[in-house]
Amino acid sequence: MNNFIIREAVKEDCKEIRRLIQELADFEKMPNGPQIDTKVLEDDGFNSEHPIFGCIVAEVDGENKEMIGYALYFIAYSTWMGKAIYLEDIYVSPQFRSQGLGSKLFDTIAKKGLELGCCRMDFRVLNWNPANEFYARKGAVDMTRLEGWHHYSLNKANMEKLTSKTTV
Amino acid sequence: MNNFIIREAVKEDCKEIRRLIQELADFEKMPNGPQIDTKVLEDDGFNSEHPIFGCIVAEVDGENKEMIGYALYFIAYSTWMGKAIYLEDIYVSPQFRSQGLGSKLFDTIAKKGLELGCCRMDFRVLNWNPANEFYARKGAVDMTRLEGWHHYSLNKANMEKLTSKTTV
Repeated sequence: MNNFIIREAVKEDCKEIRRLIQELADFEKMPNGPQIDTKVLEDDGFNSEHPIFGCIVAEVDGENKEMIGYALYFIAYSTWMGKAIYLEDIYVSPQFRSQGLGSKLFDTIAKKGLELGCCRMDFRVLNWNPANEFYARKGAVDMTRLEGWHHYSLNKANMEKLTSKTTV
Repeated sequence: MNNFIIREAVKEDCKEIRRLIQELADFEKMPNGPQIDTKVLEDDGFNSEHPIFGCIVAEVDGENKEMIGYALYFIAYSTWMGKAIYLEDIYVSPQFRSQGLGSKLFDTIAKKGLELGCCRMDFRVLNWNPANEFYARKGAVDMTRLEGWHHYSLNKANMEKLTSKTTV
């Protein structure tokens, strides 16, 4: 039986976080998704006085301290309630599941959000992801199902197209 | 025929932005949604060296400079691509629609995103909102329809419940 450590990520963790980001993308059936490199994660999360994201990691306690999970968040803003914590990714490697680690990571992000003065915790889930039930047990509400919210994305090429016509 | 000004919001705009946040909530059929007050908007957007959100406003040019639209954004983070600009709200008062103002606000947010080094522009739309077509014309993709992403929210009371059991 392994013991696990849940702790705040530091800059030196970025290589391992990048490895787990890839594992998550593979699970989501989008292996070509992650374009980010370790250096960008280091810069955006750890090299500035005001980092753009924060991260909690889970590792096996012991000599090697293998990283086996992470939860990455940023501060979002709701014009209804103010600051919200946005859980961008939460992931535990398959062989370490069903031991409560995902739950601990999730609860730690909720705690972090409260500490940061957030009134809500938001995230997105693929509709076929079995974790849907886990989130419901946590008290989270599927706002797409309940109110019909759809998530939209505009890629960089299309942002550039619009911008070329912008006069302001 | 009115002329319009599109510009960056300043702290003194928060009272009018709050008025338009309410107009948008009424349109979304959730009039009791906005719990925020002007002071919170001032603090979170304008009183810190590192504001949590930014805002572009539209007003009628002339003596009164009535505010008739706004687009409010924050910086999100994608573990696939890095920084992303998140368009939280975009709104134009009904009597000033069909004059290209929403389009200008949207394009200005795209431009802002590029200036800030963002690789993507994200937002959420209610599935019955006729603006869905407008966003499609801009090149935005409905990721809920395409890939099955659902938006989830956990309210503060449930965050507190989880946190009371957190040991880390």
